[in-house]
Amino acid sequence: MSGNTIGKLFTVTTFGESHGAGLGAIVDGCPPGISLTEEDLQHDLDRRKPGTSRYTTARREADKVRIVSGVFEGKTTGTPIGLLIENTDQRSKDYGNIAQSFRPGHADYTYTHKYGFRDYRGGGRSSARETAMRVAAGAIAKKYLKESFGVSFKGCVTQIGPIEAEQFDWEQVPHNPFFFPDTTKLDALDEFLRGIIKQKDSIGAKVMVVAEGVPVGLGEPVFDRLDADLAHSLMSINAVKGIEIGDGFAVVNQKGSEHRDEITPEGFLSNHAGGVLGGISSGQPIVAYLALKPTSSIGISGKTIDSDGNPTDIITKGRHDPCVGIRAVPIAEAMMAITLLDHLMRHRAQNTGVECNTPIVE
Amino acid sequence: MSGNTIGKLFTVTTFGESHGAGLGAIVDGCPPGISLTEEDLQHDLDRRKPGTSRYTTARREADKVRIVSGVFEGKTTGTPIGLLIENTDQRSKDYGNIAQSFRPGHADYTYTHKYGFRDYRGGGRSSARETAMRVAAGAIAKKYLKESFGVSFKGCVTQIGPIEAEQFDWEQVPHNPFFFPDTTKLDALDEFLRGIIKQKDSIGAKVMVVAEGVPVGLGEPVFDRLDADLAHSLMSINAVKGIEIGDGFAVVNQKGSEHRDEITPEGFLSNHAGGVLGGISSGQPIVAYLALKPTSSIGISGKTIDSDGNPTDIITKGRHDPCVGIRAVPIAEAMMAITLLDHLMRHRAQNTGVECNTPIVE
Amino acid sequence: MSGNTIGKLFTVTTFGESHGAGLGAIVDGCPPGISLTEEDLQHDLDRRKPGTSRYTTARREADKVRIVSGVFEGKTTGTPIGLLIENTDQRSKDYGNIAQSFRPGHADYTYTHKYGFRDYRGGGRSSARETAMRVAAGAIAKKYLKESFGVSFKGCVTQIGPIEAEQFDWEQVPHNPFFFPDTTKLDALDEFLRGIIKQKDSIGAKVMVVAEGVPVGLGEPVFDRLDADLAHSLMSINAVKGIEIGDGFAVVNQKGSEHRDEITPEGFLSNHAGGVLGGISSGQPIVAYLALKPTSSIGISGKTIDSDGNPTDIITKGRHDPCVGIRAVPIAEAMMAITLLDHLMRHRAQNTGVECNTPIVE
Amino acid sequence: MSGNTIGKLFTVTTFGESHGAGLGAIVDGCPPGISLTEEDLQHDLDRRKPGTSRYTTARREADKVRIVSGVFEGKTTGTPIGLLIENTDQRSKDYGNIAQSFRPGHADYTYTHKYGFRDYRGGGRSSARETAMRVAAGAIAKKYLKESFGVSFKGCVTQIGPIEAEQFDWEQVPHNPFFFPDTTKLDALDEFLRGIIKQKDSIGAKVMVVAEGVPVGLGEPVFDRLDADLAHSLMSINAVKGIEIGDGFAVVNQKGSEHRDEITPEGFLSNHAGGVLGGISSGQPIVAYLALKPTSSIGISGKTIDSDGNPTDIITKGRHDPCVGIRAVPIAEAMMAITLLDHLMRHRAQNTGVECNTPIVE
Repeated sequence: MSGNTIGKLFTVTTFGESHGAGLGAIVDGCPPGISLTEEDLQHDLDRRKPGTSRYTTARREADKVRIVSGVFEGKTTGTPIGLLIENTDQRSKDYGNIAQSFRPGHADYTYTHKYGFRDYRGGGRSSARETAMRVAAGAIAKKYLKESFGVSFKGCVTQIGPIEAEQFDWEQVPHNPFFFPDTTKLDALDEFLRGIIKQKDSIGAKVMVVAEGVPVGLGEPVFDRLDADLAHSLMSINAVKGIEIGDGFAVVNQKGSEHRDEITPEGFLSNHAGGVLGGISSGQPIVAYLALKPTSSIGISGKTIDSDGNPTDIITKGRHDPCVGIRAVPIAEAMMAITLLDHLMRHRAQNTGVECNTPIVE
Repeated sequence: MSGNTIGKLFTVTTFGESHGAGLGAIVDGCPPGISLTEEDLQHDLDRRKPGTSRYTTARREADKVRIVSGVFEGKTTGTPIGLLIENTDQRSKDYGNIAQSFRPGHADYTYTHKYGFRDYRGGGRSSARETAMRVAAGAIAKKYLKESFGVSFKGCVTQIGPIEAEQFDWEQVPHNPFFFPDTTKLDALDEFLRGIIKQKDSIGAKVMVVAEGVPVGLGEPVFDRLDADLAHSLMSINAVKGIEIGDGFAVVNQKGSEHRDEITPEGFLSNHAGGVLGGISSGQPIVAYLALKPTSSIGISGKTIDSDGNPTDIITKGRHDPCVGIRAVPIAEAMMAITLLDHLMRHRAQNTGVECNTPIVE
Repeated sequence: MSGNTIGKLFTVTTFGESHGAGLGAIVDGCPPGISLTEEDLQHDLDRRKPGTSRYTTARREADKVRIVSGVFEGKTTGTPIGLLIENTDQRSKDYGNIAQSFRPGHADYTYTHKYGFRDYRGGGRSSARETAMRVAAGAIAKKYLKESFGVSFKGCVTQIGPIEAEQFDWEQVPHNPFFFPDTTKLDALDEFLRGIIKQKDSIGAKVMVVAEGVPVGLGEPVFDRLDADLAHSLMSINAVKGIEIGDGFAVVNQKGSEHRDEITPEGFLSNHAGGVLGGISSGQPIVAYLALKPTSSIGISGKTIDSDGNPTDIITKGRHDPCVGIRAVPIAEAMMAITLLDHLMRHRAQNTGVECNTPIVE
Repeated sequence: MSGNTIGKLFTVTTFGESHGAGLGAIVDGCPPGISLTEEDLQHDLDRRKPGTSRYTTARREADKVRIVSGVFEGKTTGTPIGLLIENTDQRSKDYGNIAQSFRPGHADYTYTHKYGFRDYRGGGRSSARETAMRVAAGAIAKKYLKESFGVSFKGCVTQIGPIEAEQFDWEQVPHNPFFFPDTTKLDALDEFLRGIIKQKDSIGAKVMVVAEGVPVGLGEPVFDRLDADLAHSLMSINAVKGIEIGDGFAVVNQKGSEHRDEITPEGFLSNHAGGVLGGISSGQPIVAYLALKPTSSIGISGKTIDSDGNPTDIITKGRHDPCVGIRAVPIAEAMMAITLLDHLMRHRAQNTGVECNTPIVE
């Protein structure tokens, strides 16, 4: 698990750079007997695909995934699933001074210091393009969790810049380019983002992701709490600067009598905890929020230094996502699914079938 | 790494329950040759010790730590350091209906479902008492990072309920029972917390933790980003519901031109990123915030069910921390130190002495 | 998992030195609900205890183990089990030139180079005394495997020096101080070992360990094969220089038609494989052999160098085990049990209850 | 680390089946700045390639490896190296009753019970074809260890059936199809193997692998001893049934005065230990032996059962390796290199540059 692997039992290891030959992943520990085709992975891949609207980068990638191993006669074999996406839109272009200068807000400076040099083509390994493999791997976890345990995932953008969702119509999320649940704000969003694009600037966003039907009992005290591992997997998504579980930072000004979710024979009376108590799933929906920073790939000149340490200015050419948070929704769902499946497997390992099933089918 | 271990190279594994015989930990992978005594660990242990002010639980624990192994002639040997704290204040008492009912907001319900039954004495393993061992282990990491790399840590409480710090006088933090940096708010805090205690209620808090002098280059893309691992280790602290790195959730309404930290030959012009770019330390101070929920151990009756599923009411007897966030400061410093040392070792492993030292001494 | 931890799901982490304050271990991931007392661990501890016969070291240790955590009301809770044995026979003595010289055949030289210095008291961390905690932890694994799956373990010494067992009477193994299955060789062994002791020398031994009733399907291709993990855990025992699974090195001169274990509806016709096919348990008994070197702690002077690199002679004072292989039997059983339980949990994690139970109850 | 990953810091994760679309691997944690081309990997791949002599399987595979990521401008970047080999010789053929029956001595029976079904094409994941990726990954480790630390590896076949090498001329090993160091035995080997082929049978072999120039101090007590991890990585090679370090099973009849390697200012006087003392490298050559069983893919009919449990006979069609041990030499070198590099990185992580370099440059 040298940095590019996540999970302890259901593990996902990715490789590939933004403008290299391609991207790949190995999904190891996947339960056997799951019917799986490349189409099962393509749906979510298409949801995060670039070039789908005026609000995303112009880069065109088919993002067609190929299952190289681990599936036989349409079913997972329990052996590692090899996934591969060939990069198609990697025409060699002039990277200009990007090769010699550190783009502020990007990983250029830190990668160069860590490794001595870096693949500067489109950000190399630090590019969000890597998340395509997370989405593909997550689709496998989502399928298994849905079919075997009835766990489902949904996500949306709850805020872009100053514009917050006030109504939650989940039905509408797939039907607008912002993954936004509040249709009364779509025009405002369109106008706002057109302005951002015109200014050649970018903007942050807040994403919500929810898992429903999660069994009780998932999560390993004390360090591998379910919420701690979710914080890890969600914070590992590019541009994320903050994570909340349930009420998140609102708890700072809550009283115990207000926050604790009271219990009745009919169930919990509230879900301030976001579905996790003492690091273990309570059976309520698991709710998490992500804060995504505005991308630093903007058309406004900024101060930086070159590799010799001399001051210079830098500007990003071409069209980039004005709001990278928008395309983060399927990625966040994928990471939550990977972490939940990993914990379901960890839970199942420690408990005998019976003890394990009791809480799980509850 | 079965849940009770954190770290990949500098690992801390803890054991023990709130009212069991004692608490312990194994610190493995510690560099050899560090001069270490029990006194070195006691300072931070005393900072989190209960019973130190009217704002903390009445429980009296000496929290005297014993180094059982791994230190020879006053120096760490490179072999595992065994730590032990015997519980002294565990007089058998009447746990009343706590044994038969699930305290809302606590781990009683989830532990029982996960494991089939639970140690109900003072919360058993889910008690924050376990964090004493984190503080002891963290003190080792802090000492090594300070002496060998000049890395230092500091933390404070920036908000309790509605009262926020507006001035930052780090010198004052150790001199008030709230770990608060704004002395102009101390009277207000005292009055506010007396009110909370009188109401037999509790309140949340926001904690800030900072690491200074961190080498450039720590953090492993793509999943084990430094900020992702920090989110994991900090979220694993009891009662934490939210984590921010740098500007955190404020980035949602920031523009790229505003957020990106520009670079000059003299250094970065700002630190919105909180010291991490692309998951790798930039050499700037690493800044994180934690949201801590109000404890559910309060003297106000709440609805719940008993182990037979029948409705009942429950109330917590005795005096508990009205604001558990206060004592979380040394714990947060410890967890950040453990994670940073683990990553420093991971970085050093992949790079040869020279390549490794270049960024580190920068 | 920094070297002192074994297992992925059922993990055992040990600490402590030969002449330090004590020894300890954390057993993490243990299934909940197992009835467990200190007596359950003491039986195997007594089997490896020193000072039980003229053929073992004179050191007297009660080796009384204390369960510090993880057990509540007589049952495991699923949280980490803390184990502790205080060293009693550690009277400060004159270590003479052992502190300044490297005993040939011991870890003195390598520890000093690895860590810069070493705890020279009785070998410090490199002493086989550490294995007491393995035996205690293994007893937990053995109890669970026996009660929940009917898996049992047995071990014996099959050869000491030139004397090989030719008859296998497992009933007799506990009734002689050599753990030897061939009672016709006991007099010869006694005479042989008396000679070794008189010569102040030591001798090697071969140990056999067998697990019966092992479910089909345990083991993870391709690197974490069951036999590969067994080789790791058994080779990690002090003084072990060779590992065989099933026919071991005899396969070098076997033909395929002779080695392959044919299958009939009544089962396998032979067990040349030693119960593992393709790295996965076949349901047949798992058979392993260990080669243990003669201890280098002998009363015959040997050439070495001191810490300044000057040539010197060294001799070990006091009585030591003339054949450390004898006491290795309970240790080998413990390590096999720990590895099998870890793999049973790994198997259970990947398969749903049904798929998992099918092979397991077969 | 779900079974298909080896290593803790320098990790190799493989995927792919014998007759699937292809094989792949991710090499993670590789130090940056190593000049690396596909040719660097091809040399060892060609050494294990099938179809090179009458003594190996007739299957024709180019085994051309493609580096998909992790290398930029001819140098490793420190990010994951993706490797891919497309299968070319996978013409769909009639697998006959192999699909319905369990070949004795193969993994058919155990895979089916573990996973519920299996990819029966050429053994699927259990085929030794997977080792091609180990060889490719090992070539990277070998290159770095050679260029940065002067560590070199060599291996040979020391015994095939009854024919043992008595002379060791390492120069000759690459110049005969048996990787045999004793040219006086080549004719006997040729005659013996022709006989085995004529009988449609197979034979076992013994392989020796040696690492020279290994730094002092590699290995992590107590469970991750260097020899224990070597036993794991070498035993994970298909068909291996036994592992020896240094004198191996010969120590059973050795005396302490004979086995211990005495030390002089000029170095050790012998190397019975095989370069490992107390689980840590001593600076002497690391010597290991592997016992490889005869393949069960033979043209002689054998008893087995079909998937319905009915008795049947089975026979392997086509030409297979009469002695799989022959092609195991480059695989064993690769696994030893991977394990040594992983431990070199683990050692470097715990020690500061200076402390680390002292033993390493010694």
